[in-house]
Amino acid sequence: MKPKNKNYNIVLHGGAGALAPHLYTPQEIKEYKETLEEAMKVGTSLLEKGGSSLQAVIESVVVLENSPLFNAGRGSVFSSDETIEMDASVSCGERVQTGGVTNVTRLKNPVLGAYHVFENSNHALLSGMAADFFCKKAGLEHQNESYFKTEKRLAQLYQAKEKNIVQLDHSDKMGTVGAVAIDGKGNLASATSTGGMTNRYPGRVSDTSIQGAGTYAENGLIAISGTGTGDVFIQNVFAYDMAAMMKYADIPMPEAAQRVLEKLRDKNGSGGLVAIDKFGYAIFPFNTRGMFRAWLDEDGVIQTGIFE
Amino acid sequence: MKPKNKNYNIVLHGGAGALAPHLYTPQEIKEYKETLEEAMKVGTSLLEKGGSSLQAVIESVVVLENSPLFNAGRGSVFSSDETIEMDASVSCGERVQTGGVTNVTRLKNPVLGAYHVFENSNHALLSGMAADFFCKKAGLEHQNESYFKTEKRLAQLYQAKEKNIVQLDHSDKMGTVGAVAIDGKGNLASATSTGGMTNRYPGRVSDTSIQGAGTYAENGLIAISGTGTGDVFIQNVFAYDMAAMMKYADIPMPEAAQRVLEKLRDKNGSGGLVAIDKFGYAIFPFNTRGMFRAWLDEDGVIQTGIFE
Repeated sequence: MKPKNKNYNIVLHGGAGALAPHLYTPQEIKEYKETLEEAMKVGTSLLEKGGSSLQAVIESVVVLENSPLFNAGRGSVFSSDETIEMDASVSCGERVQTGGVTNVTRLKNPVLGAYHVFENSNHALLSGMAADFFCKKAGLEHQNESYFKTEKRLAQLYQAKEKNIVQLDHSDKMGTVGAVAIDGKGNLASATSTGGMTNRYPGRVSDTSIQGAGTYAENGLIAISGTGTGDVFIQNVFAYDMAAMMKYADIPMPEAAQRVLEKLRDKNGSGGLVAIDKFGYAIFPFNTRGMFRAWLDEDGVIQTGIFE
Repeated sequence: MKPKNKNYNIVLHGGAGALAPHLYTPQEIKEYKETLEEAMKVGTSLLEKGGSSLQAVIESVVVLENSPLFNAGRGSVFSSDETIEMDASVSCGERVQTGGVTNVTRLKNPVLGAYHVFENSNHALLSGMAADFFCKKAGLEHQNESYFKTEKRLAQLYQAKEKNIVQLDHSDKMGTVGAVAIDGKGNLASATSTGGMTNRYPGRVSDTSIQGAGTYAENGLIAISGTGTGDVFIQNVFAYDMAAMMKYADIPMPEAAQRVLEKLRDKNGSGGLVAIDKFGYAIFPFNTRGMFRAWLDEDGVIQTGIFE
């Protein structure tokens, strides 16, 4: 999908999972779609004004992180010991460089922390309290525990504990959020953010924070942001595997996406991705029952979707 | 390089850097070589008895972690706040699956922690105190601070602080340790462990713990363990990039290694790697002045090297 009369494109996701229409009230569906649309508006407006793709994906993800609806930032799910641990990354296709944070607990917008690591550290990925502190020193906004502790997420944790499962898919909502974009200069970028999996072991590092796993961008090739069974994304080097198929074997983007999703399924994983290639074409495939997503249609109008 | 009359092979490294003969006394060189040889003996003896490649690389790395000579386990360098933070991973080519720990502080052998995550968790990578605790619960040996605090490493930290640099290369020693092997069943495996970089920002996650960055193994293809400028290894998805060149573009292993080392240099990175392909051929290229390394020659005799 590509808008006809634009020199940019952007597509975003709010997580993939066992989503089905009967699990939502019309009001809930409306709220999800409105938030996705708001995130898209922020990104497209920046791109329309000549802003960079990196700026656009970051600001779109900030909107999703600020919403309690999605599993990232404010709406993050709980680990098994009732802590909030968030991961995020940015990936810049121009420099082929990433910045990420993992297991931050107080940062209001982990994606801004990831950008701070990208721009102002010599490192690719910082973890834990040290990462929180690195961001706090730079003046990035922190929030106390109550900001993140939504009743609904606590209830989900207790349900998961009862069933003794690490719950990736909630019947009502789940996931990671992410965005990929290309700007007028042909620069590709991606940004991804997650609150992880309900009842996961504390200290888990997710694919969301790892270049090549849940995220990747390289100019002249592709920008990718994934969502799903993150541990398998790491095992399979999911995002870079897709990029490498295109780069080294000339496999077309949609086929490369199908192949990495099949490899994911072979290991009992599931999920989806959003991607944009060097020509500005966007795809958003998934092998789950649904994926929160938003894109621009051929006329440049924002479209949103949740179910298959 | 491949031993003629063996159905297995193993090669290991103890870090790459600005190593030069005049920086070492003959006694020091002897100690390095003896430790590398000891690690090789442990690995080859296991393989000779029909042990798995995964077992062999882990036990070889344990020997290097237990030595104060190498920057892993006991000999780990200090981060800027004088803490020890260690990373390790194992990568199993049969399952194409990894386990890793990052920023553990008390675990005597981080590589055993990585194996524990691989075998007994649903996750790919655990970080920080939670990772230490996960390993402690399983009975893995922990050590107190004094075990890791070698005077020489503290002196290196103070030197680095004076110069205000994140010091990867020490004039006398540095690095990561790692091993790759293939066993009689054709299973490929790698294990890697590091104490990071002197004066690095605390909480940094290194390439050593990340599948596709500093480590990768896939049966029928390759096992890789890298050492060097870890943040660039992450940016470039170093290990999987090399594997993908071979898999998707049929680039021969030695050329793929040269290409990823050139891409590393293009970003002002340096380092080296050890790798074994599906036929059992081993390589150990580096673009630094030296790399601690050990391999089996054509007659199956253990050889060690440090300088170019």
